[in-house]
Amino acid sequence: MQLGVCYYPEHWPRERWAQDALEMVEAGIRIVRIGEFAWSRLEPTSGDLHFEWLDEAVDVLAKAGLKIVMGTPTATPPKWLVDAHPEILAVDAQGDVRGYGSRRHYCFSSPVYRTLSERIVRLMAERYAHHPAIMAWQTDNEYGCHDTILSYSAAARARFPEWLEARYGTVQALNDAWGTVFWSMEVTRFDQVEAPVGTVTEPHPAIVLDYRRFCSDMVVEYNRLQVATLRTAGISVDIVHNFMGLFTEFDHFDVAQDLDIASWDSYPLGFLERGAHDEATKGFYRQQGHPDFAGFHHDLYRAMCKGRWWVMEQQPGPVNWALSNAAPLPGMVRLWSHEAFAHGAEVVSYFRWRQAPFAQEQMHAGLLRCDGTPASAWTELLQVRDELAAMASHDDAADQHSTPVTERASVALMFDYASIWACQIQPHAENFDALELHLSWYSALRRLGLDVDIVSPRDEVMDYPLIVLPCQVIADETLATRLNAARDRGSRIVIGARSGSRTQDLQIPEQLAPGALATLTGVTVDRVDGLRPATHPTITLANGHRGHALRWRDLLDRQRTTASVVMRFDDGEPAITHQQGISYLTAWLDEDSLLALLEAECRAANIATFALPQGVRFRRRGALCFAFNYAPEARWLPDELVADASYVTGGQQLPAAGVSIWRAS
Amino acid sequence: MQLGVCYYPEHWPRERWAQDALEMVEAGIRIVRIGEFAWSRLEPTSGDLHFEWLDEAVDVLAKAGLKIVMGTPTATPPKWLVDAHPEILAVDAQGDVRGYGSRRHYCFSSPVYRTLSERIVRLMAERYAHHPAIMAWQTDNEYGCHDTILSYSAAARARFPEWLEARYGTVQALNDAWGTVFWSMEVTRFDQVEAPVGTVTEPHPAIVLDYRRFCSDMVVEYNRLQVATLRTAGISVDIVHNFMGLFTEFDHFDVAQDLDIASWDSYPLGFLERGAHDEATKGFYRQQGHPDFAGFHHDLYRAMCKGRWWVMEQQPGPVNWALSNAAPLPGMVRLWSHEAFAHGAEVVSYFRWRQAPFAQEQMHAGLLRCDGTPASAWTELLQVRDELAAMASHDDAADQHSTPVTERASVALMFDYASIWACQIQPHAENFDALELHLSWYSALRRLGLDVDIVSPRDEVMDYPLIVLPCQVIADETLATRLNAARDRGSRIVIGARSGSRTQDLQIPEQLAPGALATLTGVTVDRVDGLRPATHPTITLANGHRGHALRWRDLLDRQRTTASVVMRFDDGEPAITHQQGISYLTAWLDEDSLLALLEAECRAANIATFALPQGVRFRRRGALCFAFNYAPEARWLPDELVADASYVTGGQQLPAAGVSIWRAS
Amino acid sequence: MQLGVCYYPEHWPRERWAQDALEMVEAGIRIVRIGEFAWSRLEPTSGDLHFEWLDEAVDVLAKAGLKIVMGTPTATPPKWLVDAHPEILAVDAQGDVRGYGSRRHYCFSSPVYRTLSERIVRLMAERYAHHPAIMAWQTDNEYGCHDTILSYSAAARARFPEWLEARYGTVQALNDAWGTVFWSMEVTRFDQVEAPVGTVTEPHPAIVLDYRRFCSDMVVEYNRLQVATLRTAGISVDIVHNFMGLFTEFDHFDVAQDLDIASWDSYPLGFLERGAHDEATKGFYRQQGHPDFAGFHHDLYRAMCKGRWWVMEQQPGPVNWALSNAAPLPGMVRLWSHEAFAHGAEVVSYFRWRQAPFAQEQMHAGLLRCDGTPASAWTELLQVRDELAAMASHDDAADQHSTPVTERASVALMFDYASIWACQIQPHAENFDALELHLSWYSALRRLGLDVDIVSPRDEVMDYPLIVLPCQVIADETLATRLNAARDRGSRIVIGARSGSRTQDLQIPEQLAPGALATLTGVTVDRVDGLRPATHPTITLANGHRGHALRWRDLLDRQRTTASVVMRFDDGEPAITHQQGISYLTAWLDEDSLLALLEAECRAANIATFALPQGVRFRRRGALCFAFNYAPEARWLPDELVADASYVTGGQQLPAAGVSIWRAS
Repeated sequence: MQLGVCYYPEHWPRERWAQDALEMVEAGIRIVRIGEFAWSRLEPTSGDLHFEWLDEAVDVLAKAGLKIVMGTPTATPPKWLVDAHPEILAVDAQGDVRGYGSRRHYCFSSPVYRTLSERIVRLMAERYAHHPAIMAWQTDNEYGCHDTILSYSAAARARFPEWLEARYGTVQALNDAWGTVFWSMEVTRFDQVEAPVGTVTEPHPAIVLDYRRFCSDMVVEYNRLQVATLRTAGISVDIVHNFMGLFTEFDHFDVAQDLDIASWDSYPLGFLERGAHDEATKGFYRQQGHPDFAGFHHDLYRAMCKGRWWVMEQQPGPVNWALSNAAPLPGMVRLWSHEAFAHGAEVVSYFRWRQAPFAQEQMHAGLLRCDGTPASAWTELLQVRDELAAMASHDDAADQHSTPVTERASVALMFDYASIWACQIQPHAENFDALELHLSWYSALRRLGLDVDIVSPRDEVMDYPLIVLPCQVIADETLATRLNAARDRGSRIVIGARSGSRTQDLQIPEQLAPGALATLTGVTVDRVDGLRPATHPTITLANGHRGHALRWRDLLDRQRTTASVVMRFDDGEPAITHQQGISYLTAWLDEDSLLALLEAECRAANIATFALPQGVRFRRRGALCFAFNYAPEARWLPDELVADASYVTGGQQLPAAGVSIWRAS
Repeated sequence: MQLGVCYYPEHWPRERWAQDALEMVEAGIRIVRIGEFAWSRLEPTSGDLHFEWLDEAVDVLAKAGLKIVMGTPTATPPKWLVDAHPEILAVDAQGDVRGYGSRRHYCFSSPVYRTLSERIVRLMAERYAHHPAIMAWQTDNEYGCHDTILSYSAAARARFPEWLEARYGTVQALNDAWGTVFWSMEVTRFDQVEAPVGTVTEPHPAIVLDYRRFCSDMVVEYNRLQVATLRTAGISVDIVHNFMGLFTEFDHFDVAQDLDIASWDSYPLGFLERGAHDEATKGFYRQQGHPDFAGFHHDLYRAMCKGRWWVMEQQPGPVNWALSNAAPLPGMVRLWSHEAFAHGAEVVSYFRWRQAPFAQEQMHAGLLRCDGTPASAWTELLQVRDELAAMASHDDAADQHSTPVTERASVALMFDYASIWACQIQPHAENFDALELHLSWYSALRRLGLDVDIVSPRDEVMDYPLIVLPCQVIADETLATRLNAARDRGSRIVIGARSGSRTQDLQIPEQLAPGALATLTGVTVDRVDGLRPATHPTITLANGHRGHALRWRDLLDRQRTTASVVMRFDDGEPAITHQQGISYLTAWLDEDSLLALLEAECRAANIATFALPQGVRFRRRGALCFAFNYAPEARWLPDELVADASYVTGGQQLPAAGVSIWRAS
Repeated sequence: MQLGVCYYPEHWPRERWAQDALEMVEAGIRIVRIGEFAWSRLEPTSGDLHFEWLDEAVDVLAKAGLKIVMGTPTATPPKWLVDAHPEILAVDAQGDVRGYGSRRHYCFSSPVYRTLSERIVRLMAERYAHHPAIMAWQTDNEYGCHDTILSYSAAARARFPEWLEARYGTVQALNDAWGTVFWSMEVTRFDQVEAPVGTVTEPHPAIVLDYRRFCSDMVVEYNRLQVATLRTAGISVDIVHNFMGLFTEFDHFDVAQDLDIASWDSYPLGFLERGAHDEATKGFYRQQGHPDFAGFHHDLYRAMCKGRWWVMEQQPGPVNWALSNAAPLPGMVRLWSHEAFAHGAEVVSYFRWRQAPFAQEQMHAGLLRCDGTPASAWTELLQVRDELAAMASHDDAADQHSTPVTERASVALMFDYASIWACQIQPHAENFDALELHLSWYSALRRLGLDVDIVSPRDEVMDYPLIVLPCQVIADETLATRLNAARDRGSRIVIGARSGSRTQDLQIPEQLAPGALATLTGVTVDRVDGLRPATHPTITLANGHRGHALRWRDLLDRQRTTASVVMRFDDGEPAITHQQGISYLTAWLDEDSLLALLEAECRAANIATFALPQGVRFRRRGALCFAFNYAPEARWLPDELVADASYVTGGQQLPAAGVSIWRAS
């Protein structure tokens, strides 16, 4: 459990570097990330290399006892490079070039940019490969930020048919897989397939899905090239990339296969604005962030690299890039830091050391203000430093930072990027946002006091008391077999609407939805009732609570459905069915109904749950228990949760933004 | 009164075709439309013709006793064609090419595509001209779908000046007609006139109107070419095109002049989402569609080809293309079918036989599901089949399917495409949607239990007890003379605000609005008060009902107005005037006030009206009376409507989605 | 105090001109603006000059005794010119050419268009330089209308680096000023700097600000060229340009330096729709306009040319270009006219004489209707004519039309275009519209019955009892020194949030916000809390009124703040501080709280205020007092305001749209 910070020595006078390093150490910071946007300083004009300043910066930091994460600078190719190689620029869906002038102005498919990237990464790697202070390398920065995954450049358009040929082998196979006979879209050569943009009405959905897979694979290839370059240069320390929040544009499981550590950049306030919450929720959590935003991503990215993960950038105050940028409630920076550790983070690194007075992020807070004096987060940082020390003396878990320190959770939630893409391509009902749906299931589980592991449908074994699939649109026999095996070994499984409704080729399965999951669930979907935003078929729960469906209801084929109907909507349509340990939920349910349903499933699976107060979350890390209060007012922890608690910090009452940590008895 | 279906043999194995044909016949289907998207199967590469599969499909269907509507496949030119002739593509108002990858990717102006269309139509026509099972040909498919009428391609830009020269003769005439002296827009050559796009602020409205007329004429020419090609190849059976709902981008009266039968594609649920109704109305009719959506279009398209019209595509379950796609209430497919016949349809043809598991429309229901088993509409289809048989035995009207079977209605509603365009070009008040206004008048008349005929301002004779012009913006002396003649023969006429406010050249008439209608109406409009969405000048009706204006009020010149003021707004401004059988309504009125006004006009014209319950509609076809319940709950028909009714089906009580049919005594 | 009108002789038959001139004179009109869109009539094809009709028009008007304002016709280059020189067209941020077909289709940077403009202006000037009836020349028309200031044409892109070199001298200075080290944006040559568009995410804010300054300077240069051309041709009468309402895209103070008279085009109803008022306010003032719209612009443009200003275009009825175009309440044209004179206008000129039946503005009212008969404003015009005559006999102020006639106000409001741009570039909180904020301060002052002068931060001396800076984002030591001097001479100063938060280079100042104003105000801003639209921290005023902040709160550094906290929000955060005559307001306050705050400041500054009823405004012009009722219902003036009033017109009661004018005792 270590603290880090993101630092830009090139933004400040050299005379200040040593003071900065000293203050970092005093504040408990052990790790500094540098370098990831510095290309124009490393190479001001083509071939004119200037590593000497970076040498000095590394040495100053190292001398102070800091460990360094070195970032490759490929996210910001400088002007001379773009002028010499304009073909590296991405192109958007409207055919407009996405030009120089900010960052991420390159197309992942570009062979030219891959060559140029390999070169600068190699030069950096060769220079710093054996520097003892460098503990890890970061590839690039936030792949995909600013919607940069999908590109329609000449390079991408040229590569797509090759990728298709590798996938399908023959044109006939492609025509069959996609169903191009519809609207006379049959092709006779792979190079007749165009990127699915600029069409008169919606393009063919199967082409869109494959184009998204293709673009995701281009990120995989690009990252793999950087990793291979670093390794070839002799780098043996960990390689990491910093992923983002609420971002599903490429398959992160695929990219993570080439990394040692997954990290992500946690901006709870900025993303509250972008989330799909209602206005009241956004108002209530305005200065705290949604209580499940960070936790979900902690759990998601913990699933990427065998449990090894960091927070690479932690919001330390107001940011600059949301529509409205709130100042965090005092205490939230501390809360966010502890929560990351509670979910198993090895490192929490703040972005950034000192607020820059210039450029796009001049209103983005740092640990220091523009003038170098401490910003509001500073005292919280010192408190975290001291509390980590206290925990280390309490608990040997703090020593385990290179291996997973959280135990397997009792609940697994399945997450699949292609299924989310499938819903974006064919929403069928207004506001059907599959990521939001996954988050609503995750929230319900967390409100019940449960730790959650995220799993991929590609995981071979899933041994959890409870496995939930909120919206596993694309399902095949392999997944069905794995779920069947898990059930046979005692797992209880809950499967949500739309699951199994498409094949890998985005076709409706021959046996109708839920396709490969039909036998397991014992249901057949006859047709779908897409619900307008104001349409809410009602349901009356066992406890008398009146809930409702929103956006989606599967209407079941009653003759073909063999599962028993556990609950019905007030109009008689089945809401939940059950068959031999497998439950099927036909609709998107309101939050409280979903919570009640999952609570019942936990009871059936012998999993203990706790009714946490609004805004409170709970998490175990080894023998330590953590509770967090995201509400802007005080909350009390349930008695049964803290019986015989031995507090490291806090107590049963949590003030606004409060944290309690205790050793479970 | 026959049933049909749209079928894509090319989507299914040949082995299945005979079974499909058999099942169609058993379900009462007599007519099958095929072929209209099959170009890539007929000609997979340029010149490589493959009609053999279509020959076989035609034969299989014919052998089963089915009659065929053959569609020309020009709505989906295949990839090889577009690659060879990219200049056929349309260009949008932003200058972007509307590319290959879905359908309707051609510009109506393109001489190249006209040549290519003529060729494939001729080849098909020559092959099938004399096949006895082919009862009709459909030209292309849904002209204009996906906003494809207005194109700014090089072909269109080259043709527009020629079209202008043909219209105006001299540049001086054009300058005078448009008023180009304004903002120095005078031209000295026709080829100086550009398409009215890409301008700094709004383009000249008269150019915009003429560009819309030009684009409409391009559709007329294109369709006429297909008709001529079919006739030249020896085809003597009916030629039909399938128009669309809520679509006014070209002048359908003009296109229909070259057709034998007008048909349209009826998707009541998909279009409810697109309609201008409030949220409560959309929620109430979510699974039924608006009660006047289908009826209005039935009546509109009945006006096109001397009364001959079909429903070519009838929604049989959920569709895929609305923002939210509801499942129809059980019974609605039956209701929609009967309502079409009630309005005089010769054929109701369902779209589509079997749901496709692939491509854009994979979530569009068919009569069969993807797996070939019956979908939810199947039982309703069988019921309609049986009820049609019962009606045939009751009533000889069923024999009359080649001539109009509905009698002239008591009310005529004037509909003019150019007037709708004029309001789109110069709305003057937010949300002034002239199509919505026409629909609101139509609804009021239908809520009064009236049958309605749609008339064109180009109709030479209009002999109806009541003629209404909701918004006849463009009026000339010819129209004034016809209305005068109708009035003199006993018609009562109601003219709505904005009528006569523009000349054919989109100028304000010399005598001010209502221009050519000024003498007839006895009013002069001094100025217009455009009403903000929340501004509603109130009116108190004779029955005490408090109504209001919305969006628009003409303020009359009191000195020049000779008509008597029949009703005033609460602030004293005239609402309705009358002079010798001609009423003028100065404002857009709320629904209930409009109904009250039209009820009074009916009384004055000695037309009997009925107060129908919410959601119920009534229609006569010859001696048969039909009532339809669009409400999601039961309704009772008024006693006076069903006195001495002899029911073919149903009764005085209509369940949700219910239909009653009876012989009037 | 004279009346004028805008006239287009080229739109009407020559036979009508003399009658028009006669009617103008009879209506009290003395000044006629002509010529500004007539290029295609003056030069129908290149070089084919036709001034003879304009000669005749000038003579007809002159003979009737009218004085003429001659407009240069450069706002509408004709088609032949654009065809010959397409490079003159502007290009928008998406890279699309802004084409011919309406007006203002030229780029201010274009050297070609500057040459062509110089030529036509010179030709006109030479022809009419010494015509005795011409009393003034207008350059072009409404610079910037239809968002035409920012252009990214090849001409602009070529000129921008030159402009930068002139501003910064060296590339290093530019890199330092902007902070290009961020995201590797350093350049080594000026021509590497691109226009800040087409970027992947937001472009560098300092480049955006400089691009806006550059585009503003292009307008200055373009206007200066016209002025110089006119002067070179021997023109010695006044030169004027007609600016617009709610328009801040260029620095009007800079352009005005080359003019003798500032004028503006006053359309209170059209701009009500575009203003940032809530729906209730827009509904209440629908037919009157917002009571501060005209007054603010009168005061703003009075600040431009040493107090000399006109209304060049006064709305006389409904306009055509708002989303909904209301008809003015009877009396409003009279009210608007008098209000302009009350604020010191020399001339009020109506747009336009006669409504045109054709083209874009065919629904824009004139003093006459399309048919040449009087429109609704006519009787109000005659009333104004007579009242002006009555005032002239009352008051010698009417003779002073070439020098300022309003006395220095007691309150100055600082207005700075670059500060408004800075907030647009980095809003930081949703809906932070700095122009709206300035208008809200102006409204509060006017509701208190105060006359207001607008001042520029570049004014060297500001001697006012009260000076307010609502949002002076960019502040430097020079401004601080001037404010300090004003305070030392007795001014009380109120400074709003965000003031001083940026340097000229759009950097956060070294001493943190309010930067150069820190010493003066005695506050330091620690961080900003950007407020979501529904978030409203509350404040309880001394009178018990419950107010709130919206959009923005500065959170102060309590240790560094030396000013005393005068008022706090309910959560304890400082709302208003004070130190030696300087108050600092940390937040955007609701209207009533802001009024209460400014009322208290006025008391402290010994300025008398009046509580005006809703919708009533008051203004002094020399010895005359004016009151205006914008409410749609009657209002009473406060007794203390009209004690011993000697009325020229009206009285203590103001009907809807009423005006009272009296001599103060």
